[in-house]
Formats: sequence, C-alpha cells, structure tokens
Amino acid sequence: MTIARELNPNARFLMGPGPSDVHPRVLKAMATPMIGHLDPQFVQIMDEVKEMLRQLFRTQNELTFAVSATGSAGMEICFVNLLEPGDEAVVCVNGVFGNRMCENVERCGAKLIRVDAPWGSPIDPADVEKALENCKPKLVAIVHAETSTGVLQPLEKIGQLAHDAGALFLVDAVTSLGGVDVRMDEWGIDAIYSGTQKCISAPPGLAPVSFNEKAVEVLKNRKTKVQSWYLDLNLIRSYWQGAKRTYHHTAPVSMVYALHEALRLIFEEGLEARFERHRRLHEKLRDHLEELGFEFVVAPEYRLPSLNSVKIPPGLDDARIRRRLLDEYNIEIGAGLGDFAGKVWRIGLMGCSCTENHINMLLSALKTIMYEK
Amino acid sequence: MTIARELNPNARFLMGPGPSDVHPRVLKAMATPMIGHLDPQFVQIMDEVKEMLRQLFRTQNELTFAVSATGSAGMEICFVNLLEPGDEAVVCVNGVFGNRMCENVERCGAKLIRVDAPWGSPIDPADVEKALENCKPKLVAIVHAETSTGVLQPLEKIGQLAHDAGALFLVDAVTSLGGVDVRMDEWGIDAIYSGTQKCISAPPGLAPVSFNEKAVEVLKNRKTKVQSWYLDLNLIRSYWQGAKRTYHHTAPVSMVYALHEALRLIFEEGLEARFERHRRLHEKLRDHLEELGFEFVVAPEYRLPSLNSVKIPPGLDDARIRRRLLDEYNIEIGAGLGDFAGKVWRIGLMGCSCTENHINMLLSALKTIMYEK
Repeated sequence: MTIARELNPNARFLMGPGPSDVHPRVLKAMATPMIGHLDPQFVQIMDEVKEMLRQLFRTQNELTFAVSATGSAGMEICFVNLLEPGDEAVVCVNGVFGNRMCENVERCGAKLIRVDAPWGSPIDPADVEKALENCKPKLVAIVHAETSTGVLQPLEKIGQLAHDAGALFLVDAVTSLGGVDVRMDEWGIDAIYSGTQKCISAPPGLAPVSFNEKAVEVLKNRKTKVQSWYLDLNLIRSYWQGAKRTYHHTAPVSMVYALHEALRLIFEEGLEARFERHRRLHEKLRDHLEELGFEFVVAPEYRLPSLNSVKIPPGLDDARIRRRLLDEYNIEIGAGLGDFAGKVWRIGLMGCSCTENHINMLLSALKTIMYEK
Repeated sequence: MTIARELNPNARFLMGPGPSDVHPRVLKAMATPMIGHLDPQFVQIMDEVKEMLRQLFRTQNELTFAVSATGSAGMEICFVNLLEPGDEAVVCVNGVFGNRMCENVERCGAKLIRVDAPWGSPIDPADVEKALENCKPKLVAIVHAETSTGVLQPLEKIGQLAHDAGALFLVDAVTSLGGVDVRMDEWGIDAIYSGTQKCISAPPGLAPVSFNEKAVEVLKNRKTKVQSWYLDLNLIRSYWQGAKRTYHHTAPVSMVYALHEALRLIFEEGLEARFERHRRLHEKLRDHLEELGFEFVVAPEYRLPSLNSVKIPPGLDDARIRRRLLDEYNIEIGAGLGDFAGKVWRIGLMGCSCTENHINMLLSALKTIMYEK
C-alpha cells in the first residue's frame, strides 16, 4: 500500500491566466467545519452568496447563483439550457474561448453561425449585424474578456443588435468579473457565466451565473429535456431558490464558503476601487514591459487590465524562461494558447495577484534572467 | 452595498446521507496555498490522487481520477461517454439513484430497459437475466449502495450476466467507496463512479471515477461526439494522464488537496480496519435502535453499514424531531427520499462520522426527545 506524502507544494505567486493567488481569509474560510447542503444555516449562506453575486454582476436577476463545477461548466450550463436541437446560434470568435462556445453549440445539435475576428482584435459589431441579416438565431454569444488573447470586448452595441434580431445575448465574463466592470442589466445581457479563480480570487471549482426573466422563459418553454441532468437549470433552480429547497445534487459546501469570503473581500474593497487598482497596476506593468522591449498583442483601447498578452521578443526561450521563473522565483506566468503557443506570454494581474509587489517581483526576476542569457 | 457577515455556521455532527464530518487534517489541507492547475507540483499531486484512488477501487485501471464536479456528475460522465443515441442500456432500479440513472440514459438518446425491485430490496439477478434475453445492451448499470434505501447490492453475479450479454458493467459506488469493500477488477466492473462526501469524508465537490480498457475502447470508437464538452473523457484524459498534460478546464485545486489528504487518512487506517469499523459500529447502532423500537427497512443480509434506513415509529413527528436534533444537539440525520419521504430516517455512519461517540450522542439525544414527547 503506497501512501502519498503530506501535501507540500511551494508557495507560488500566480501571475498566469488563473488561478490567481487566494487571500488567506479565503483559504481559512474553506477550513470552516462541514455542514449539510440542506442545513438552514447553509441555505442562509447560499442566499448571501446569491445576493453578493447579484451586486457583482450588477443585476436584479433572481436566478443568480454558482454552478457546482468550474467556469467551463458555466459555459455549458448556458448553452445546454438555452439551446435545443435545430436552433440557430451566432457565436463571436476571436480566441480559444469563442471556439469552445462553438463546440458547445454543436454538441447541443444547434446550427452554428460564426462571426470571426483575428486573435487579439475585438469583434466588429458590423460583422455581427451582417451575420444577423441571414439567420434567426435563438442567441448571440460573445466573450467579454478573452483569456487567450487579453481582448476586452465592448458589449453594448452587439447586445443591442442581438435584441433587435430577437435573440438572447449570452456573455462569457470568466476573466472580467471582479477585475473590470460587468453591468449585466444595463448592457442588456440575458445570460452570463464566470469562474471563481480569476479576478474573484477564490479557488477554481464554481461558476457564478445569472439568467434574466427572458432567459428563464426560454428555459420554461423548452420542447425537449436539457441534455445534461447535472446542469439542468429547471432542476437546479429548485435547490438554489424558493422557500423550500429541493435536493438535486450535494453542493460543494467548502467551495461555497470560499466564494462567500472572496465576495466579502471584494465588497470591503469596493467595486470602483478594485477596478481602479486593476487599471492602475496594468498601466505600471505595461510601462515596464514596454521598456524591456515587450510589445502588447492588443491595441490600447481594447486591453484587458487583468490579462496582459505580450509578444515574446526574438531570442527569448519561451519554455525555459517560464520554467526558471517558476523554479527559481515561484512565479507562474501563462504560456500562449492555441494560435499563440510559443509566441505570446499571458501575464495575469487578477484579484489578489494584482499588487505592486507582484509586478516588482516579476520584473526583477525577468530582468535577471534576460540579462544573464 | 450589502456585505454578508463572516461565516459562522454551527459545528454539526453529520449523520445523514452525506456530506459526512470532515477530518481537521482535510479541512487544513484545503488551506494549502493555491498553485496552478498545470504546475508540475500539482501534476505530482494529481498522480498521487490517481494512485490512491486505484488502491481504493482495487483496480489497475490507468484511467482513474476525480471528475471536477460532484458525484452526480460522476454518474453523468459515465453515461454520456459510454452511450450514444440509439444504444440500449439496462438499468437496475430500486431507489432514487437508479431512477436518476434512467434519466441519464434517456437524456443520452439511448433506449432504456428497466429492471425494478421494490425499494429496500436488492435487485434479483434472475430479473436481469430475463431482461437480457430480449435486448442487446451496450451496458448494464446498477447502484452498489442505494443512498435512498440503505441496500447493499451484491454485484458479482449481475456483472457476469452483463459480460455474458456482451455489455459493459457500470456501477454507482457513491455511498459504498471507503465504507465497504469495492473490488472493481475482481468483480468485473468496467466503469465506476463515486463521490467524495460520503465514506471518504472529504467535502463534496469531486467524483472519483475509473474506466477499464474495455470502457476506454468504447470511448475511442464512438461515432458521435460526447454531448457534454465539460465531461468529454477523450478531452479530460489528456489533462489527467500522459507525459504532457493538456489544458482542458481549470481543476478545482483545493478540492484535490482535500481528497489527497482524505485518501491518506484512509490508507493510514487501512482498508480492512476501516471496513471493520463501519460494520462494527453499524451493529452497535442497530442494536440500540431496535431496542428503541425502530425497524430496519432492509433485510439483514443486504444492509449497508454506512447508511441505516429505519422506519419512523407511529406517533413520532418526522420533521419536528429532525429539526430538534439539529437545533438543540447539532446532529443532522437524513429524511426519507422519494417514496420514503416522511416514513423513513436515514442515519449515516460514514467515514469520520462513524464513531462510537457519534452513536452515543445521537442515541442519548433521541431518547431525551422521544421520552419528553
């Protein structure tokens, strides 16, 4: 019988595309003793999480909660609940996560209409408008903050086009929520999903989501059953809302504890102060990286402060430098994904990883490694 | 802006159908600092979890890991990967979780053949044999330990029948794993799933699973894509196994820490000693409950030691007594589910909740409440 040793990973500084560093108060919250998933005290905690998530998404939607799985399941819960076989869906694609949305549409048996933009560029509303001339989609889906490229997508115009075409507007806010403003109700977003391990700085494992009344109507009027039992919102709703909570699955209690504490930290800081911190420190990082000869992938007006994608200058060995940062300095930065593999680094400034100290450590280490070479 | 108070739930004694009490070492493990989901040190931890899960399932299967969601997603990952539209599947049903398997089969577009037994009784292999005369199923699925009734199902004979019919044998081990013996390879189980929050005594949030070579061949030879992207084993395999780990989703790192420590505790105790503890304390609880006038739902030879289902004697107020146990004694026991609602209590003795002290506390409290009435 082989028993593994006690856990003893290095204390890292997480400056990649997520997970980000987790505040000690959030780590400690997970050590809160276990209680039952139907315990009235847990129902109270769920209600507090729902209310804080509403404030974070800036929405009044009753159906706002955290899916019991990671951000990718947040994406899936939206598609499998809102689409039925034969529906049409417009998906905007300018990176890995737009592509993943397309995979979801196809696995729902729906017809996919793609609107593409080059990686590193935002989606052009004119292209969405053109696509909408030739189809009658159930939804238009787009990524607010593309984690593979660092593009922050303006949403309002495209949301308006979606509504004009009679479609729901579905948004991926995985890397934006908690780092930049997300105004669900004001921007006309009908359904949204996120993850806990980016700018919220809780551990990975939950997917905050919200659905407005229009989206809930679509759910209620489905002709077919949702293909996923685990992600069937009609069943999950009876557990997360209402006077009587009906057992569906056993909620990941400790993860909900963690999210609860992470949300408390966010509101103690204040949303505006938090967004300003992300903007200000992104600018500091940007100035220093540019001095070192790094060029940003994304044009200034579309740059996501929480994920800085820079081209790797010629002569620098991608894998070797990332490995040295990790092994010698305990600093993690992100490799390029998909088309950007080997060409781009993704430097995250998310939540608790977005501090001056993180930036100073990274820049000093990077300089040492670059000048030694 | 409303900020919730700090978490402050009561310390409960969890003697329901799960979650069970979590050992302080497991709670502490979750406070281990976050590391990246592709960090070589995390890959090492994943490998250790896989190896300990193999020892717990008593299997050599390479594809043994923990799904990034709760036990119900463990069920779903098996069905959506092994079935394709038009396939036939035999499902044995004698409780809530057999019914849930049927839901999964139908949502895969497969043809369901049910083999029923009364709630509280095991499935009769003769009924499975009869069902197999008239179909050519891809799999035969059964629950090892029915959490809704407390039946422990003998598996070997039905596994043999499944194989004779050319079908895969799929087993739900959610409430058995870690509390009674589960011998995957010896019993001819081709695919299995479990949960972390029952007899493993980790928090809810992960679903240990294992698939043998025959099941992996079925995966590889699918004609259609798996309907769930999040649960597509062909994608997840590239993250959990092989020399190079490919990003699929961001694993719930803290939950994997918790499972790692819970598994270490299991092997420090030793499997035989652990199973013996569950048997012995079940007998103690049984003797005392019978003295108090409670009658067991399940015949002695099919009783699951970790979940004791007893009929509520006439004159006892189900909801009121459970509420008093919780409010006055911080003890949670389980209500009846489905057909058993209002008629049955489910008293769990799982993992860290399976101690003499738990039994003594519950019996003393129950006596006080019953005699006062």
